[in-house]
Amino acid sequence: MNASTERTGAPLNTASPARTRSTGDFARVNALLARGRTLATPVLRAAVDRLAPPMDTVAAYHFGWIDAEGRPSDADGGKAVRPALALVSAEAAGAPPETGVPGAVAVELVHNFSLLHDDLMDGDEQRRHRDTVWKVHGPAQAILVGDALFALAGELLLELGTVDAGRATRRLTSATRKLIDGQAQDISYEGRVHVSVAECLEMEGNKTGALLACATSIGAVLGGADDRTADALEAYGFHLGLSFQAVDDLLGVWGDPESTGKQTWSDLRQRKKSLPVVAALAAGGTAAGRLGELMAADVKKSQREFEDFDEAEFAARAALIEEAGGRDATTAIAREQHHKALEALDGIDMPDPVREELVALADFVVVRQK
Amino acid sequence: MNASTERTGAPLNTASPARTRSTGDFARVNALLARGRTLATPVLRAAVDRLAPPMDTVAAYHFGWIDAEGRPSDADGGKAVRPALALVSAEAAGAPPETGVPGAVAVELVHNFSLLHDDLMDGDEQRRHRDTVWKVHGPAQAILVGDALFALAGELLLELGTVDAGRATRRLTSATRKLIDGQAQDISYEGRVHVSVAECLEMEGNKTGALLACATSIGAVLGGADDRTADALEAYGFHLGLSFQAVDDLLGVWGDPESTGKQTWSDLRQRKKSLPVVAALAAGGTAAGRLGELMAADVKKSQREFEDFDEAEFAARAALIEEAGGRDATTAIAREQHHKALEALDGIDMPDPVREELVALADFVVVRQK
Repeated sequence: MNASTERTGAPLNTASPARTRSTGDFARVNALLARGRTLATPVLRAAVDRLAPPMDTVAAYHFGWIDAEGRPSDADGGKAVRPALALVSAEAAGAPPETGVPGAVAVELVHNFSLLHDDLMDGDEQRRHRDTVWKVHGPAQAILVGDALFALAGELLLELGTVDAGRATRRLTSATRKLIDGQAQDISYEGRVHVSVAECLEMEGNKTGALLACATSIGAVLGGADDRTADALEAYGFHLGLSFQAVDDLLGVWGDPESTGKQTWSDLRQRKKSLPVVAALAAGGTAAGRLGELMAADVKKSQREFEDFDEAEFAARAALIEEAGGRDATTAIAREQHHKALEALDGIDMPDPVREELVALADFVVVRQK
Repeated sequence: MNASTERTGAPLNTASPARTRSTGDFARVNALLARGRTLATPVLRAAVDRLAPPMDTVAAYHFGWIDAEGRPSDADGGKAVRPALALVSAEAAGAPPETGVPGAVAVELVHNFSLLHDDLMDGDEQRRHRDTVWKVHGPAQAILVGDALFALAGELLLELGTVDAGRATRRLTSATRKLIDGQAQDISYEGRVHVSVAECLEMEGNKTGALLACATSIGAVLGGADDRTADALEAYGFHLGLSFQAVDDLLGVWGDPESTGKQTWSDLRQRKKSLPVVAALAAGGTAAGRLGELMAADVKKSQREFEDFDEAEFAARAALIEEAGGRDATTAIAREQHHKALEALDGIDMPDPVREELVALADFVVVRQK
């Protein structure tokens, strides 16, 4: 299989080898994602409407509901995996999916708070094919609206006024702290020559795992689940998050631009120390050595010089990562974390259809191509 | 009285005309401020120690515990009015002051989250005689550590695990949302020609009043006070906050640099649309007209040109503000809000010594010279 064919292939062809996935599984996942969006979006919009101007407008732009000129728009709002998980989470506790809605919205608010701030800190100019908020509305609005979304998340949950809402907020706050720790680690790794696979996984666990874990427990907590059940659901969500991120890291190098909506070799263009890169460098051997030499020279280049690289330069780096075993190692991590996510479900007593939904969502995460 | 003598005078010479303040009142206030710092600081330090590196170091710099090189330091950490209020608040509910400590620390964390972000948004390079965090550690760390302090505040309260902690967190979250609204208003006013006194008071109520209100209720809520008592304490704290801010606005123009630690005419140098300015412009008449003309010309100048102004230029503006009645109007607002704060206490049943402490704190706020 040549590199070009392979680049557009699914990151993992056999996510759950023990089962055969049918197209029905993906129809089910699509239905869950659609349900999450349908139930959460009106509540999310009403929450954003509470913001003082111009923060309401800036937030509406960020969520893709209006364009930069303020005209109604229907831009890509992302996959919305988190709201879908929060509603299934409520069902896992025997509650109706609606019980999970405030949790779904609170998690989305925190997720988007982090996107607003991270895009500014990282200097990222594009998200979901559109200019980022700091680029359109300036850094002050990106900071302020991020802060406001974070505060709104707590407000929405706590105004439920129940003991379970307090428990849910505590879990969300703890996840948010981890998310911030993860961003701090991500920034500090950029300035370092050597980052270990364990450090990279720790960072990704904080940055991606913690909030997906929270999404997966928050609906159940709002539905009155005990801490043991909530912890087990968090374990599922955490490993799902690590699996999700490993697949993201694969797509960041070998993803098909047609599917991902990002440039080819997008993580390489940003010089990200993602799992495939870190695992390749850690592997040792000829390819790893050559990759290390190229990257040592790369860091001395300006971002502009680097962006002007020929496609072949990125393709060469991707080939070295693959040759050194970075792609296989990342695929193995995605698979292992997917397996651990499913294992975590064994410890939870829940209705069979709900368990099947969580399995289908885990499978979707690893086979998705965007 | 000439302008120079007047500039160094106390903003309000008779805060509570009906009572005679003795030096004993101020000894009591100093003792309350010291108690707040003594009880809150170790818990604040332990909370900051939870942050992942380098955020712990950046936060320690912000709080004045270390210098820019990381050496231990004992810089001015501010007046610490909020922690003092939170502990008296617990006593108002008949609880020991220690009950208010998690609330005191949570409010301090939110206050400092807002300072970190506001300094960056406003481009302020100095705070309490030291370079601001974004200036020393860069914008990304200012954003990240601000976020982390905000999250820590919720974490500290919610890990108490009680129903009252949930109620306290809800009040803190609501105050934080107002604080963010206030900063959004402050930023939007900068770009406007006309701002009314009512708009300025609304902004200051959000930016300063809401968090002082929360500080004054949070200890009581943690001590089990009912919502009616907590609301009355918030009303006291809200008016105290507006009075505090009016005095700040007076000190920002006529404060003595020796006391305030700021430059002469500091708010005028920053072209702030503070209460004296807004009230003067709203008054109409010759002086207001002349002030308006000068300010219309000022906005066309670069910040650098403006900073190079001769002292006499600022003195002339201050004199026009005073002549137009901006100083008297602001003094009247400080006095009125101080009066409303004391009135709010009438509706609360609490031990006499606690009531006296709250009165002494209100008096301190309006007669302070820094």
